[in-house]
Amino acid sequence: MNLRIPGPTPVPREVAEAGAADMINHRGPEFAEIIGRVTEGAKRVFQTSNDVLILTTSGSGGMEAAVVNHVSPGDKVLVVTIGVFGKRFLEIVQTYGGNPTELAFDFGTAADPARIDAALAADPELKAVLVTHNETSTGVTNPLKEIAEVVRKHDRLLIVDAISSLSSIPVETDAWGLDVVVSGSQKGWMVAPGLAFISVSPRAWEAQAKCTTPRFYFDLQRARSSAEKGQTPWTPAVSLYFQLDRALQILFAEGLENVYARHHRLAEKTRRGLLDLGLELFAAEGHRSDTVTAVKVPEGVDGSLITKTARTEFGTVLAGGQGSLSGKIFRFGHLGLVSDEDVDNGLRAVAQTMERLGYKTPTPA
Amino acid sequence: MNLRIPGPTPVPREVAEAGAADMINHRGPEFAEIIGRVTEGAKRVFQTSNDVLILTTSGSGGMEAAVVNHVSPGDKVLVVTIGVFGKRFLEIVQTYGGNPTELAFDFGTAADPARIDAALAADPELKAVLVTHNETSTGVTNPLKEIAEVVRKHDRLLIVDAISSLSSIPVETDAWGLDVVVSGSQKGWMVAPGLAFISVSPRAWEAQAKCTTPRFYFDLQRARSSAEKGQTPWTPAVSLYFQLDRALQILFAEGLENVYARHHRLAEKTRRGLLDLGLELFAAEGHRSDTVTAVKVPEGVDGSLITKTARTEFGTVLAGGQGSLSGKIFRFGHLGLVSDEDVDNGLRAVAQTMERLGYKTPTPA
Repeated sequence: MNLRIPGPTPVPREVAEAGAADMINHRGPEFAEIIGRVTEGAKRVFQTSNDVLILTTSGSGGMEAAVVNHVSPGDKVLVVTIGVFGKRFLEIVQTYGGNPTELAFDFGTAADPARIDAALAADPELKAVLVTHNETSTGVTNPLKEIAEVVRKHDRLLIVDAISSLSSIPVETDAWGLDVVVSGSQKGWMVAPGLAFISVSPRAWEAQAKCTTPRFYFDLQRARSSAEKGQTPWTPAVSLYFQLDRALQILFAEGLENVYARHHRLAEKTRRGLLDLGLELFAAEGHRSDTVTAVKVPEGVDGSLITKTARTEFGTVLAGGQGSLSGKIFRFGHLGLVSDEDVDNGLRAVAQTMERLGYKTPTPA
Repeated sequence: MNLRIPGPTPVPREVAEAGAADMINHRGPEFAEIIGRVTEGAKRVFQTSNDVLILTTSGSGGMEAAVVNHVSPGDKVLVVTIGVFGKRFLEIVQTYGGNPTELAFDFGTAADPARIDAALAADPELKAVLVTHNETSTGVTNPLKEIAEVVRKHDRLLIVDAISSLSSIPVETDAWGLDVVVSGSQKGWMVAPGLAFISVSPRAWEAQAKCTTPRFYFDLQRARSSAEKGQTPWTPAVSLYFQLDRALQILFAEGLENVYARHHRLAEKTRRGLLDLGLELFAAEGHRSDTVTAVKVPEGVDGSLITKTARTEFGTVLAGGQGSLSGKIFRFGHLGLVSDEDVDNGLRAVAQTMERLGYKTPTPA
């Protein structure tokens, strides 16, 4: 089965098998060594000298940690939304009593840094900006470097959901000045789901120390204190650390620049292949993601049948649309363990599925 | 290496390998089937027809879920503590603004149901009782059935940390009237850490609906709504579900009654073996746990050297004491995948370690 969803992504055989190693003591020296090694590896992928903490939770738990450690009840913050996962950040802020201003952009487009600039200029009380780097629900990548420039200019805290970008698309945490960055093991990291990563800048630690939102499991100060002793505050997902340890070796053996280049090349190939079928991409040109491509369901095709047909008839697992996009788009993931062959097979399955559902590729004029 | 700590416990080879199966779509029909099957299996282990929800988090995250869904800011609750994990419940309640009354018993002893009865009679405003079933830090099992009788008599909500008991020691959720029960995958379940289980009675759901503590990742209503569709609200730790699916088969093949009997028999054997060495057990007689035995560090032995010596010299991983018990006790786990041979080897390693550290087994008079 060709798993072409935007996460969980296929886990390389040797990574899966590394996770099946004998269980060990999570408080012993062997595990402390693993924590040290994977933390250093994660920092390299984050391109940061900030603390990077690893939490046993899914990406959404990592987003919650980003909020409850840095946004206090009543805090005014700007939440930039371009899709379902931006809305998730908004919902978490609202849940914990923050006072968010939403700056929404149409689904399918990226955020405009100039409008973020204007919003921050208009309200000096906005303490932080929360933004999605790569919006998995729409296949759009935000111009994070430019957004960060604006946020730095106004000296606000920048909190980034980089769950489906980091390790596949360059994220220069330190060079761009990103304060809090979240990622998740089940994306480009090529590890099974269950671990979240979060980097915290010195400026963010200052905010963390003053933040009054109650937190226990997701308290980052506890995570940092434990990490200094080669431990975690709560029993960690040991087998996923085993996987991560091996997966990082694979990433570094390929070389991060090569990993980014492969993702870009295969994304281009995917987009070209879909356009050649006469399909329309959901994301606007120039905003398209190198990890996931969203495709409009063509007229005359029943969007609710696409993922089932592709899976049961053509051996390919695609993702449908989420929320308001359900039935209107489908999504093709090309991140993590992905090759030319995977993309070719995926494109063939899309073509066959469309044909089966009554779609005819327009003949070029 | 003989892993004789009270969790994470050894993962059977076939369970570890089941976790290395190819990654699948967490929103697809195959995973929905697994969720259905492991949930039914978990309910059988919990001996309940209540909802049982599976969360991607460690046991402490499960404890947090139990608190933030059922204890509102200002709520008066009784927290019964007999060790480190009871204190953890207390700390979580305090963190989220609950108003706890601590009923503390000396470490090494179990809670006295009569004193819980008196505390509840004295304060009708105590809405809930939080209690540890099996206190991993001291090797004591509380008389949960008797405690539940008292709590039922006073008609308060009963919230139980059964992390290190459930699946190894009988916990009759429905027969005893337990409202909220938490367990964790890395104990008797024989699965790697990263999943927590939580059962919720109809009475607890009523409290949950009224509970005003903010919650997002750990919101049980979301978990229930998703479970009804064969999903989870956030990307779950798929590979640990694969493991759980296999581990439950092993548990049921042995038969739960046989599993409980094996744990009791091997606990007795462990205790007898340690007493035969002239060592003193930390837990009072009659209160001793069938999953973990705590042993007093004998006079003249440097308690800080025990776990290291046992591990590096005698191939056995023991646990030290936690918090105020550090250096004063060590702990021997006998839960999950554990056999007569494991206990024999563990006892031999304890004897050799003690001898190496200068301890002489007293000769019988």
